[in-house]
Amino acid sequence: MNETIKNILSHRSIRRFKDEPIPQETIETLVQCAQAASTSSYQQVYSIIGVEEQSLKDKLAELAGDQSYVAQNGYFFVFCLDYHRHQLMAEMTGGNVDATVQSKEGFMVGMIDVALASQNLAVAAESLGLGIVYIGGIRNNLREVSELLRCPDHVVPLFGMAVGFPDASPGLKPRLPQEAVFHKNQYKDDEKALPVLKEFEMKTAEYYKERTGGARDEGWATQMARTMAQPKRTYMKEFIESKGLDKQ
Amino acid sequence: MNETIKNILSHRSIRRFKDEPIPQETIETLVQCAQAASTSSYQQVYSIIGVEEQSLKDKLAELAGDQSYVAQNGYFFVFCLDYHRHQLMAEMTGGNVDATVQSKEGFMVGMIDVALASQNLAVAAESLGLGIVYIGGIRNNLREVSELLRCPDHVVPLFGMAVGFPDASPGLKPRLPQEAVFHKNQYKDDEKALPVLKEFEMKTAEYYKERTGGARDEGWATQMARTMAQPKRTYMKEFIESKGLDKQ
Repeated sequence: MNETIKNILSHRSIRRFKDEPIPQETIETLVQCAQAASTSSYQQVYSIIGVEEQSLKDKLAELAGDQSYVAQNGYFFVFCLDYHRHQLMAEMTGGNVDATVQSKEGFMVGMIDVALASQNLAVAAESLGLGIVYIGGIRNNLREVSELLRCPDHVVPLFGMAVGFPDASPGLKPRLPQEAVFHKNQYKDDEKALPVLKEFEMKTAEYYKERTGGARDEGWATQMARTMAQPKRTYMKEFIESKGLDKQ
Repeated sequence: MNETIKNILSHRSIRRFKDEPIPQETIETLVQCAQAASTSSYQQVYSIIGVEEQSLKDKLAELAGDQSYVAQNGYFFVFCLDYHRHQLMAEMTGGNVDATVQSKEGFMVGMIDVALASQNLAVAAESLGLGIVYIGGIRNNLREVSELLRCPDHVVPLFGMAVGFPDASPGLKPRLPQEAVFHKNQYKDDEKALPVLKEFEMKTAEYYKERTGGARDEGWATQMARTMAQPKRTYMKEFIESKGLDKQ
């Protein structure tokens, strides 16, 4: 097992950082790593906002649901789906890319492009001994986040990422068994999947029981059924369309 | 610069592989790396299908637009957004996750989860000296791909990835300048972005001119305006909704 794979397999989200900024040179390297990721048809449908001003970070932390590590970290990135650049370039060259930008397929391409770039950045950061945590919480109030960061039409902040020198050392969180998520040739039948998932239910119940000293013993399936019972961020469809995306 | 970062920065898509399969043990490690990625609220909204049967790979290559490297490689993965598992678990525990699964936010979470996992796999593969190429082309005929791989409701194949021992050594493809995609604190004004993008237009025109011996000298913006003039895969919205996803 090489260093890269060791590094990938030891990922855990870090939610407490030392009060120590990350050098600008490192930030540049991390963004360079993000940009090195594959991108659909060379489109590069992303922008990355490096939020450095403490007042902006504080405001983001509040909008993300009072998550302290959004304000207190070595650096804070916001990853955006971005077709504004393509609109600008189409204008410049006398073209029209509206139908692509507004399409479901275009939206999917953008989502994927952004996430590939961000994960490169995450792996690169962790290889340098930094810790990271993805912040989906910025989608709690995306209209406000988008205004705060002055994102124009066709630009949607998808998630944040806090990066920094770790000041915590949480254990690895167990993942679904490989058998449950990995299928050979074709998607496997439920009869094959169910025993594996039931075993995982017991394993995760045990995991939480140990970590909480018995206060919590909810398995993965029970947790999912509970946390997914109510849909989240139900304004999202309207908001995304208001940005001129994912309309047809 | 450490090995991981060197590896990430030297990424290029490989489209010709040696006729040499990847050992199953390596495949297991790669899938393990995929699963180690961050996942929104522990949901793990993905399945990975390892397509090993040559007849299936041939059929996929055809559906992806006759791309030979989909059929000829060391291994072929298909990455799927997967809420079927959550539906199954909700049934088991007497819960109901329909509204979450059907939501725009749920769809976005799934897209991001899948892409984070796939990029971990890509980086891990490249760290082992393997080459990779993402295959968005499977979305050319997603209904047929989904049937071929027997994906149930709430499971959508998003993209494929061919992996293998490289039999080609293409150059690095220039990315947008960091200034163009990286913003400090807030999204930058067009006046600041435009000169950078114009410079990139000349640089990429030069890049293509050199690579094609003068046959092609289209810059990035011109290429985008041309390839994005017509929307692609316009059936996508209907298809995704037919899978029970992204409806509200």
